[in-house]
Amino acid sequence: MGIGVDRERSAARIEREIATLSGRDFTRSSVAIRRYAYTPEYRRTLDHFTAALTELGFTVTEDPLGTLVARNRPVGEPAFGIGSHCDSNRNGGKYDGTMGVVTALEVCRLNEEHGLGLPLQLLSFLEEEGSGFGQMLLGSRIMLRRVTEADLRERFRAIDDGRSFWEHAEEAGYEPARWEESIHVLDGLTGWIEMHIEQARVLQDTGKRIGVVNAIAGYVHADVHVQGRGDHAGATPMGLRLDPTTVLAETILELEQLATESGHGTVGTVGEIEVDPGLINAVAAEARFSLDVRGPEDARFHGVAREIAAFVSDTAERRGMTARYAQRQTLPATALDGRIVSALEAAASETGEPWTTMHSGAAHDTMCVAELVPSAMVFVPCKDGISHHPAEQAQPADAALAAEIILNAIATLA
Amino acid sequence: MGIGVDRERSAARIEREIATLSGRDFTRSSVAIRRYAYTPEYRRTLDHFTAALTELGFTVTEDPLGTLVARNRPVGEPAFGIGSHCDSNRNGGKYDGTMGVVTALEVCRLNEEHGLGLPLQLLSFLEEEGSGFGQMLLGSRIMLRRVTEADLRERFRAIDDGRSFWEHAEEAGYEPARWEESIHVLDGLTGWIEMHIEQARVLQDTGKRIGVVNAIAGYVHADVHVQGRGDHAGATPMGLRLDPTTVLAETILELEQLATESGHGTVGTVGEIEVDPGLINAVAAEARFSLDVRGPEDARFHGVAREIAAFVSDTAERRGMTARYAQRQTLPATALDGRIVSALEAAASETGEPWTTMHSGAAHDTMCVAELVPSAMVFVPCKDGISHHPAEQAQPADAALAAEIILNAIATLA
Repeated sequence: MGIGVDRERSAARIEREIATLSGRDFTRSSVAIRRYAYTPEYRRTLDHFTAALTELGFTVTEDPLGTLVARNRPVGEPAFGIGSHCDSNRNGGKYDGTMGVVTALEVCRLNEEHGLGLPLQLLSFLEEEGSGFGQMLLGSRIMLRRVTEADLRERFRAIDDGRSFWEHAEEAGYEPARWEESIHVLDGLTGWIEMHIEQARVLQDTGKRIGVVNAIAGYVHADVHVQGRGDHAGATPMGLRLDPTTVLAETILELEQLATESGHGTVGTVGEIEVDPGLINAVAAEARFSLDVRGPEDARFHGVAREIAAFVSDTAERRGMTARYAQRQTLPATALDGRIVSALEAAASETGEPWTTMHSGAAHDTMCVAELVPSAMVFVPCKDGISHHPAEQAQPADAALAAEIILNAIATLA
Repeated sequence: MGIGVDRERSAARIEREIATLSGRDFTRSSVAIRRYAYTPEYRRTLDHFTAALTELGFTVTEDPLGTLVARNRPVGEPAFGIGSHCDSNRNGGKYDGTMGVVTALEVCRLNEEHGLGLPLQLLSFLEEEGSGFGQMLLGSRIMLRRVTEADLRERFRAIDDGRSFWEHAEEAGYEPARWEESIHVLDGLTGWIEMHIEQARVLQDTGKRIGVVNAIAGYVHADVHVQGRGDHAGATPMGLRLDPTTVLAETILELEQLATESGHGTVGTVGEIEVDPGLINAVAAEARFSLDVRGPEDARFHGVAREIAAFVSDTAERRGMTARYAQRQTLPATALDGRIVSALEAAASETGEPWTTMHSGAAHDTMCVAELVPSAMVFVPCKDGISHHPAEQAQPADAALAAEIILNAIATLA
C-alpha cells in the first residue's frame, strides 16, 4: 500500500503556485508567460522557489550558471532528483516546465508532511526553451558538457540584445568560467524523475490522466533544397516545367506514409516551407523545406530519414531537377530507466486512475540527465495538446496525482 | 511576293536602340532595367522615341495620362496600330516591352525607306508591368475604362512613396481628370499588332524564331486557406494529426494532373505557399497557397479551376480539416483576329524561317486593345524563357524578322 495523499490539498497548492508564478512579476509579457535566464522575472521565480524550499528545511544553492539546486541532505550524501525547468517559451503558457518544478515542490512538501524523510534534491534547469539565447536544453547541455566554452563565450548570443551568454551570466552575478563544475550537480543522485505536461494529445485523446514515460524520442532535423526552374506561370506548358513544388508535394505525402508504416511512435513532419520567388504568376525556381523525423527507436526513425532523403533525390531526378538534403541536427533516442519506470507504473496503478506507459516525442532536460543518472518522466495531459502558447492548459488535479505517484515511486526505490 | 527587307540592317538598328535604352539614363537601377511611369528615366525613354519618330515624319503626342501616340496620318484618318510598352519590371531586362516598341519603330522606318506609305500609328502603353503603382496593364485598362476614377484618385498608389496615381500624373504634367478621353487613342485603328518576347520556352524548345499569336490565355487566380491544427511535431502521433501541408501536397499533384489532362494550353501553378507557424518542430496549423489556372480556352481552364476547388474541399474534409477557396481575379481568354493572324502566318511563311502559331500564356495590353480593334501579336524567343529579370535575352535578328513579317502583313491588310 502506498502513501495516502490528500490530492485535493495538493491540487489546491499546485494551483496557487501556478497562479502566483503567472503574475505580472514573473513574466515579461502582458499576454503570455515570457521568462528566461538572467532577467528580473526569472530571478524572482528562483527566489520564490528558494523561499518555499527553505521553509521546508531544504538548503538551496545555485550552480555556477544559475541552475537551482535544493537538497534536504548535505552535499555528498545520496538523494533522489526531481524537478524540471521554470523558464518559458517567449510566447508561452503557465504550465510548460513550471508545473514540473511546482509538482516537484509538492513532492518535497508531501515528504515533509508525511514525515517520510526521503532524501530529495530538487533541480530547476536553466534555459530549457532557448528563449534567452536561442539554444534549447541549454542548462542541461552545459551540465553534461555538450557545449564548448567558445559556444558560451561567443556563439550563443541573447535574442534580445545580441550580447553573449557569457556576458549576460557574469552580469547576473554568475561565474560562467566555472561552467564545467555544473556537472557536479548530478553527483550522488540515485535517480531522477521529471514531471512535465505532455505537449500533445495522446493522454487527452485516450482518456488517461498520467503518462509514465519510458523513452524520449530522438530525431533527425534536415533541410531539403530543390532546384527547379523559375518560369512564367501562364506561358510555360505543363510539359516544359521544372516545378520544385511537385517534389515538395510528393515528399510530404511519402513522408506521411513512411512514418505511418514505420509505426512504433515514428513521426515525420514538414514544418517549414519556402518557395522562391513565391509569386502567384511564377512557377517557383526553388523550394526549401524542413524535415523533422523522430521516434523512440533509433533504427526506425533513422530508417525513415534515410528513405525520405533517397526519395527526395530520386523524385527530383525523375522530374529533371536536383535536390540537396542536409542534416541540420540529430539526437539519438533516450531509453529511460526500467526500474524507475516500473516503480512509477506500480505507483500509478495503485491510484486507480487511468494511466499509460508512453514515450515522449518532445525533447526534455531528462535526455541529458539520463546519461549519468537512472531517469524517467511523468506526463500529465494538456488541453488539446496545445503548448508553447498562452492558451496552454493543464489540470492541477492531474499534477497532484503525478506528485503522489512520484512520491510513492521514490519511496519504493529508496 | 512580300517586301524585301535588309534584315541585317534592321537587326543592327534594333540592337542599337536596345543598347541605348539600356543605358544609365534610362533605368533607375544599376543592375537591372527599372523604368516606370512619371520618372525621369521613363520621360527620357518617351523623348527618345519621340525624336526618332519625329525624324521619320510622324506627329507625336501623348494621351492625357502619358501613352505615346505617333501617327503618320492626321488624326481622324484610319491607320494600322503597332507597338507595345516601354516600362519595365522593377528587376527587369532589356527586352520585355521595349523590344516591341523598338520593333514597331523599325516597321515605321522600313515603311518610310521602302516608300510604302502605309498609314501607321505607333503606341507605347503606360505601366504594363505595374512597377510604378502595382497595377498590371494599367495604361490599357485606363484606355478601355476598366478602372474607376476612385481607383486612379485613391486606390492605386505608388509603390515607392504611397502617393496616388492621380497625384503623380498631375505632378508629371498630365491631366488625369481627362482619363476617359484616353480611349480615343484607338479611334480609327483598322488593326493592331503587338510584338513581344515570348517570356516562355516554347519557341526556343521547338526551334522556332517567330510565334504568331492567335489567342491570349485567360486565367483564374485564387487563394486557398487550409485550416489544420498546430501540434508538436515530435509528440503528435501520425494518426492524430490534422496537417494542412498534406492537403497542399495533394492539391499540387492533382492540379498538375488536371491541367495536363485538360491540354490545349491549359496550365496550373501553385506559386505562393505559406505555412503557419512555419517551424521545423511544429505541425503546421494553417497553410495558404495560391492557384493560377490559365489557358486560351475559357471552358477548359475554368473547368480545371472548378475541379481543383472541389478537390481542395474534398481532400480537406476527408482529412478532417476545412479549406476555403477564394477567387482573387479572373479574366476571360482573348481570341485574336483571324484575318490579321492569317496575314501574319502568310508573311511568316514567306520568310522561309521556322515559325509557329501559338497562344500567349502571359497577359498583354493587346487583351484590352482587342476589345475594340482587330488584333494579333507576334512573339520572338527569349533565352531559356527567362523574363522579368536582368538575365533576359532576345535576339535583334529575330525582332528584325518580326518587323519584316509585321510590315508585310500590314501591307496585305491595308
